[in-house]
Amino acid sequence: MRDPAGSLGELRASIDNIDAALVYLLAERFKFTQAVGHLKADAGLPPADLAREGEQIARLRRLADQSGLDPVFAEKFLAFIVAEVIRHHEAIAESR
Amino acid sequence: MRDPAGSLGELRASIDNIDAALVYLLAERFKFTQAVGHLKADAGLPPADLAREGEQIARLRRLADQSGLDPVFAEKFLAFIVAEVIRHHEAIAESR
Repeated sequence: MRDPAGSLGELRASIDNIDAALVYLLAERFKFTQAVGHLKADAGLPPADLAREGEQIARLRRLADQSGLDPVFAEKFLAFIVAEVIRHHEAIAESR
Repeated sequence: MRDPAGSLGELRASIDNIDAALVYLLAERFKFTQAVGHLKADAGLPPADLAREGEQIARLRRLADQSGLDPVFAEKFLAFIVAEVIRHHEAIAESR
């Protein structure tokens, strides 16, 4: 059997690489949602959009299934991100 | 000015692409943390590791700064993921 501390270090190095990718992707995602926020504020649209969120949840659950991610977690993850996005959109709408 | 509904659709298509990438990366991340969980259970190590979490938080905040992501959000994001990971590790330890 391999040295557990060595294996732990290798696994953690891979986790750290994935986390860097996640951070950079999230930074890009928030750029796009900021643009959505400005567009919605310009058009007088409300920050939240339940129909869109319903479609996103269904799609992410499908993708989670395909990738081996727990679909329940995928849904919780989207809710976590969307809560932050709506906070940003409200801030944009209030600053007008 | 461009058609707002058209622009909104384009922005959402980019957000959907990023979300697919996020789901697939998260699926890989949980594979690595499951391996960490089994390794910790084999070695009798506790599920949580505060020193490791402290290093992860500091690193993710740096990466967030570099990428333009809110470092406070990056820290909340890590806490959200780690809570799920610890739930998995506890389940692994209990199943032994």
